[in-house]
Amino acid sequence: MPRNKTNDKRVLVIGLGRFGGSLSEELVTHGWEVLGVDNNPRRVQAYADSLTHTVVADTTDDEALRQLGAHEFTRAVVAIGTHLEESILTTSLLVDMGVPHIWAKAISRRHGRILQQIGAHNVVLPEHDMGERVAHLVSGRMLDYVEIEENFALGKTRAPKEIIGRRLGETRVRSAHGITVVSIKRHGEAFTYATTDTVPQKGDIIIVAGKTDAVERFAELG
Amino acid sequence: MPRNKTNDKRVLVIGLGRFGGSLSEELVTHGWEVLGVDNNPRRVQAYADSLTHTVVADTTDDEALRQLGAHEFTRAVVAIGTHLEESILTTSLLVDMGVPHIWAKAISRRHGRILQQIGAHNVVLPEHDMGERVAHLVSGRMLDYVEIEENFALGKTRAPKEIIGRRLGETRVRSAHGITVVSIKRHGEAFTYATTDTVPQKGDIIIVAGKTDAVERFAELG
Amino acid sequence: MPRNKTNDKRVLVIGLGRFGGSLSEELVTHGWEVLGVDNNPRRVQAYADSLTHTVVADTTDDEALRQLGAHEFTRAVVAIGTHLEESILTTSLLVDMGVPHIWAKAISRRHGRILQQIGAHNVVLPEHDMGERVAHLVSGRMLDYVEIEENFALGKTRAPKEIIGRRLGETRVRSAHGITVVSIKRHGEAFTYATTDTVPQKGDIIIVAGKTDAVERFAELG
Amino acid sequence: MPRNKTNDKRVLVIGLGRFGGSLSEELVTHGWEVLGVDNNPRRVQAYADSLTHTVVADTTDDEALRQLGAHEFTRAVVAIGTHLEESILTTSLLVDMGVPHIWAKAISRRHGRILQQIGAHNVVLPEHDMGERVAHLVSGRMLDYVEIEENFALGKTRAPKEIIGRRLGETRVRSAHGITVVSIKRHGEAFTYATTDTVPQKGDIIIVAGKTDAVERFAELG
Amino acid sequence: MPRNKTNDKRVLVIGLGRFGGSLSEELVTHGWEVLGVDNNPRRVQAYADSLTHTVVADTTDDEALRQLGAHEFTRAVVAIGTHLEESILTTSLLVDMGVPHIWAKAISRRHGRILQQIGAHNVVLPEHDMGERVAHLVSGRMLDYVEIEENFALGKTRAPKEIIGRRLGETRVRSAHGITVVSIKRHGEAFTYATTDTVPQKGDIIIVAGKTDAVERFAELG
Amino acid sequence: MPRNKTNDKRVLVIGLGRFGGSLSEELVTHGWEVLGVDNNPRRVQAYADSLTHTVVADTTDDEALRQLGAHEFTRAVVAIGTHLEESILTTSLLVDMGVPHIWAKAISRRHGRILQQIGAHNVVLPEHDMGERVAHLVSGRMLDYVEIEENFALGKTRAPKEIIGRRLGETRVRSAHGITVVSIKRHGEAFTYATTDTVPQKGDIIIVAGKTDAVERFAELG
Amino acid sequence: MPRNKTNDKRVLVIGLGRFGGSLSEELVTHGWEVLGVDNNPRRVQAYADSLTHTVVADTTDDEALRQLGAHEFTRAVVAIGTHLEESILTTSLLVDMGVPHIWAKAISRRHGRILQQIGAHNVVLPEHDMGERVAHLVSGRMLDYVEIEENFALGKTRAPKEIIGRRLGETRVRSAHGITVVSIKRHGEAFTYATTDTVPQKGDIIIVAGKTDAVERFAELG
Amino acid sequence: MPRNKTNDKRVLVIGLGRFGGSLSEELVTHGWEVLGVDNNPRRVQAYADSLTHTVVADTTDDEALRQLGAHEFTRAVVAIGTHLEESILTTSLLVDMGVPHIWAKAISRRHGRILQQIGAHNVVLPEHDMGERVAHLVSGRMLDYVEIEENFALGKTRAPKEIIGRRLGETRVRSAHGITVVSIKRHGEAFTYATTDTVPQKGDIIIVAGKTDAVERFAELG
Repeated sequence: MPRNKTNDKRVLVIGLGRFGGSLSEELVTHGWEVLGVDNNPRRVQAYADSLTHTVVADTTDDEALRQLGAHEFTRAVVAIGTHLEESILTTSLLVDMGVPHIWAKAISRRHGRILQQIGAHNVVLPEHDMGERVAHLVSGRMLDYVEIEENFALGKTRAPKEIIGRRLGETRVRSAHGITVVSIKRHGEAFTYATTDTVPQKGDIIIVAGKTDAVERFAELG
Repeated sequence: MPRNKTNDKRVLVIGLGRFGGSLSEELVTHGWEVLGVDNNPRRVQAYADSLTHTVVADTTDDEALRQLGAHEFTRAVVAIGTHLEESILTTSLLVDMGVPHIWAKAISRRHGRILQQIGAHNVVLPEHDMGERVAHLVSGRMLDYVEIEENFALGKTRAPKEIIGRRLGETRVRSAHGITVVSIKRHGEAFTYATTDTVPQKGDIIIVAGKTDAVERFAELG
Repeated sequence: MPRNKTNDKRVLVIGLGRFGGSLSEELVTHGWEVLGVDNNPRRVQAYADSLTHTVVADTTDDEALRQLGAHEFTRAVVAIGTHLEESILTTSLLVDMGVPHIWAKAISRRHGRILQQIGAHNVVLPEHDMGERVAHLVSGRMLDYVEIEENFALGKTRAPKEIIGRRLGETRVRSAHGITVVSIKRHGEAFTYATTDTVPQKGDIIIVAGKTDAVERFAELG
Repeated sequence: MPRNKTNDKRVLVIGLGRFGGSLSEELVTHGWEVLGVDNNPRRVQAYADSLTHTVVADTTDDEALRQLGAHEFTRAVVAIGTHLEESILTTSLLVDMGVPHIWAKAISRRHGRILQQIGAHNVVLPEHDMGERVAHLVSGRMLDYVEIEENFALGKTRAPKEIIGRRLGETRVRSAHGITVVSIKRHGEAFTYATTDTVPQKGDIIIVAGKTDAVERFAELG
Repeated sequence: MPRNKTNDKRVLVIGLGRFGGSLSEELVTHGWEVLGVDNNPRRVQAYADSLTHTVVADTTDDEALRQLGAHEFTRAVVAIGTHLEESILTTSLLVDMGVPHIWAKAISRRHGRILQQIGAHNVVLPEHDMGERVAHLVSGRMLDYVEIEENFALGKTRAPKEIIGRRLGETRVRSAHGITVVSIKRHGEAFTYATTDTVPQKGDIIIVAGKTDAVERFAELG
Repeated sequence: MPRNKTNDKRVLVIGLGRFGGSLSEELVTHGWEVLGVDNNPRRVQAYADSLTHTVVADTTDDEALRQLGAHEFTRAVVAIGTHLEESILTTSLLVDMGVPHIWAKAISRRHGRILQQIGAHNVVLPEHDMGERVAHLVSGRMLDYVEIEENFALGKTRAPKEIIGRRLGETRVRSAHGITVVSIKRHGEAFTYATTDTVPQKGDIIIVAGKTDAVERFAELG
Repeated sequence: MPRNKTNDKRVLVIGLGRFGGSLSEELVTHGWEVLGVDNNPRRVQAYADSLTHTVVADTTDDEALRQLGAHEFTRAVVAIGTHLEESILTTSLLVDMGVPHIWAKAISRRHGRILQQIGAHNVVLPEHDMGERVAHLVSGRMLDYVEIEENFALGKTRAPKEIIGRRLGETRVRSAHGITVVSIKRHGEAFTYATTDTVPQKGDIIIVAGKTDAVERFAELG
Repeated sequence: MPRNKTNDKRVLVIGLGRFGGSLSEELVTHGWEVLGVDNNPRRVQAYADSLTHTVVADTTDDEALRQLGAHEFTRAVVAIGTHLEESILTTSLLVDMGVPHIWAKAISRRHGRILQQIGAHNVVLPEHDMGERVAHLVSGRMLDYVEIEENFALGKTRAPKEIIGRRLGETRVRSAHGITVVSIKRHGEAFTYATTDTVPQKGDIIIVAGKTDAVERFAELG
């Protein structure tokens, strides 16, 4: 069966631990068909109702992987968490089967590097990435923080005194602080986009964009 | 010694696994003093050079924790990864010592709930959160995605054909798609803020903000 | 089904080890309906005949606990002995289900503290409590001892020479020793209450009440 | 060195787990010299400050036990908790050394029986005993309960309506309910003895003595 | 069913390891009915054909032991080899059931002592006993040796030169060496009794009886 | 150093478990020099005082064995009990070193066969042998029993009524029962040889020799 | 059933690990009937299709081995890899059954020696042998190397400059280098035999035979 | 330090098990300098005398590998046998360090494939390769066999009757059997090359080259 890669709304997720499980459920919520696979029957059971299909299988076995039709998927996620060996064996098999988009979770930088050497297309390090992200929240000022690229970040913070009661267009936060206020949220309301006419009030939550240091410093203004 | 909570630039990080280690290094990079603690000498050794202080200690022991001066910290992160029991015992002790800001990493929702019942102020679930985040990237259109709040997200994607070569002010993406373009990046350049006068070109990467579904759909425009 | 808390004669006992098993059997003897649960089929089998209902289940699983109807009980005892983690997870779930009277067994003071932080209403430490109680018996004079409150205890001992052959009303044990003789037992008979007219004889066993030190000292009279 | 059994204020406690540890500390509090022994250095360390002497030793070894001077003690407690084999070997050695008063903790009725067959003078089953005792508290009416002998118990409960505001001598609780009120405690005060002239008030806590069933039923009066 | 102890030709053997298995087969060979019990199905299977009855059961369980009818046996052998705990628990139960003749195998002197303290009637230490017996054979002169009592032994050895070709009545081995030649075996024939008229020849094997040292020394004559 | 095999009073004993330990001590008692070796320091320590020399060594290692001078011994006992592999490796090395008299303990018949195939000169199976020997004692009549050869045994038993009060020469036990009374022991005395003039009395213990069945039957006479 | 050893095309292969499995498949390819045995059902399953017969069995058990008809095979390979004990027990049984050709795999030289002592006819050490063979390839010049006998080897290498373009008969490689060129392979063709008239060309691969050192040196010519 | 790849006579061997150890010793014998590394001190100790340098190190650690100077070697052999993970991590690091010639041992075909995907230059499967090679020897006719290339092999066998006593030039073995006799060995002599004038005699051992099937069939001629 030829793969129609553009419209293929199916994803093979191998490993239904915390990462793979959350990912799978989020995918289903957004309309994807997910085939969830794990060698642990208990885990498979736990996701039997929420995923499109679930199967107990040992994905380090070439034959078993083929019987799942792994070679016909356009997208696969290797979410095997703790066993380096299983993660590598499974990824190697998927690469040799020619799956065009393979995401793989790594538990260390070297593991990530090996997955790339073998041929995984995207590698994720959840623990590392979240560790770095949470580091920015420890001060208590920054409410959320995400680095979109090297040296460009978005931060969620309370509107500092300096901009309260003034039109954003007048505050010159861009020139003074190197950041842009891109969204704003009033207590009890939803986030909305911020324009030059927006006037932040005390207690408003804002999202700002800018270089990483600038975003950091702005959140510290208080 | 009274805690000067406002200016206290010290953080106690317990657990130097992948999450705690990355978090600690990121904190040091941003000027924090980090006391890194783990009961595994090998891990402590691995961070001896990059953190301000490192100590081998069993943080489930009241006395040991006091000898670290844990009760004098304003901020503590319990980054113990795999042993539920250690994570809970340590957090319980920090709560009883009155540490005002405790972040704790959980490995399951129930673990997270228990940490809150005990009194942790912030709970993080790295694997779950990254699982959900990566789910949005599997299609290949969305390059990065972060849910800032329930039903409000930021997405990084390539500028779709529909807005290429036109002033953003004319494209009506807000009314048509329910999203705002908040930043833009031309090939080889850095991200910058987008205004109504910005004219996206083919290959530009943009960051859009909006309701989660709207951001999802917009990334699929292609 | 609404709980009729006043008349509810049902108890959920989780953990059928030595503590939970003895407790359950004693409850059944006194007319309670006991639902005994353990994740070990062998233990459940051992109590299948003596308890009202017995079930093998993993009580750290929200769903499994609900299927037992745990949320409809007025009284639950978490008698899980050796696994801190299971004890805490189970208690946390019962608290969130709103069970109004939760007794939980702890294996250390910190464990007990965590159970309280989570929301258990009563915490028992069998090994600690029995250790303290037996300490009073080692001298060989005191035959049983129980501390009813801080600084108020009951002791079982042989009647000392000093009071033998005299009406208790005349012995002035209250003023001289700070204790009251509350019950007495003649060899081969049952305990009965002691009055001021009671005349202890050699070999009688008596129960005395008073401050802990007073009870201790009185038992040493010999 | 001949043992002066009457005045010997020394106790050998083998096993410094929760039971043995609590027992030892309670003994020291009451003026006994305790030699605490365990084969686990960590446990011994934990009690190094609070007990008179502590030693790391393998008490299943005849020679090691002799070097501790075990044969010169008048009183020994074998508080080894989890390893049946160690408990039995140690007790057997103490019996053969002629220690006159040996208390031993058992973890099951059969274990207790074996300790008696070998020659232990007193056997305690903490988990069983506490399980039975707590069973009486689950209803919520009984605040504490202890069975002094087969079919004779003491219970702590709130004074029931029936006796409030009346002289105990008039209430006929003995004839009507088969129990005697032996002590009473007014809110904020200490326990004191109850006489026929005592008039219980609402909220008073009383201790009653009587046959087990009678004590149970009386606590249920409310 | 009353036990007819005199004629009861049944033996209960618990533990079908090497000792218990050999013992059981030898008993069957001599006309006994053997009920062989082990908690290991594989071992039970191995003896299913050669013993009268075989059962898989956990003999540390009172109920299981009764279902085997253990309490109706006149003779029981506890041949449990490696688990001290199982050996002791089983023996304790048999003692309490009143089995009149209990043989128990021990793996150390202390284990043997405990079995006696519990009430076993005969204790065997195969490894110790065989170790002592083989010690006498290492010189190469003694061909077999068994100590019948303290300081009385039987030895099998080659007839020494000193007695070859002479009537035993003339050799004065009794007065000279303190031993008696009790049996003799000519090459290719069976053992027969030796009389004062027996004339040993070169190569004859003889059995001698006497004090242990005397037997030892006689075998060294060569 | 050439071996003087005839006078060499040294034995190498490898494995200081129950069999090897008892054997070694018995050898020392009889004037042999024993070099005791085990890879377990604790066991070596236990025999440090009672044996001539003791060494901790891994005897499966060719080099280690040579450093002990194993190749210079005339007699070696491989008393390694539980690890088939170590027993075989050690024996193989001793065979290749040319030790002239190797005794080896086996734990199963196949193990014994392999030790012979490799080249051990004598193989002992303590558990089997003792199992068979004890089988003869279970009836309670036979007090000890040892099979000296196939179909020739010695038995210790009480003198049966039939021979009490009569000269052995008159009893015709040889012709009637096929056995010879070889030794006799009166209560409180030592064993002595029996002659045709010996007159057994009630309660005497005798040792009889004969074919295995004959010895068995004679002991049953009562 | 008598064995017709000459025509018997059956082989018993015990152990279906990597060595035994490859060997078995190669045998089947060359027309042999292979009975493959392993005690691991998964391994047996993996070869169920490719071998003539496969059985799950414990070959350390005499009876099980007989039921396979092991005693009727002319050829057996003991390919048990990692468990010395199983390898030795199985080989011992086959030897005692009289199997005329036994190949056994060893994992160490001593293991190999023991297999020989027991009676295996051929012993292979795959890891050792391949280690030595690969050592000759590390330089990069030698493409393959096999030592046929002590001091006689075959090597595969590129034709050195010295012989290119010349008739082998003229090159005098025999006298100059002590080797013979026995086969040659032109790029894209198969190997063929080399004669004195063969003219090697650049890039040809040749096989040379000679003493080990000579073959080594010749490959280094370049 | 720049690598002089042509003359570099140093090899880094990681893993000193049976394969790596034999390979290292063979290399040293042929004049290479070998740095042998293993994370097991005992193994390193075993090769301390025979290899040029030996080091205990964890080669999965980037830093540790650099301290060994791994990045300066021209040739490395990853001989890690049993732990897939260590083998892959180590190989990945060596590839990233740019070592130009990496040999790696695999324990399965997939393992081998992964090592290639990561970038190892040569992969060896000792167990597989030896398994296939030994398969040709089981018949008993072929004395050694090695497949030099797909469908070209060398075999060692006894000279068949057909060619005995005749000049090889006359026997037409090439046309009749498709093989060439390349070497010959007379009893008691060394191998030498065979020419058309060679006359094989009974008992001579010959080496023949040819297609795999032809070599097989020729060995069966007998």
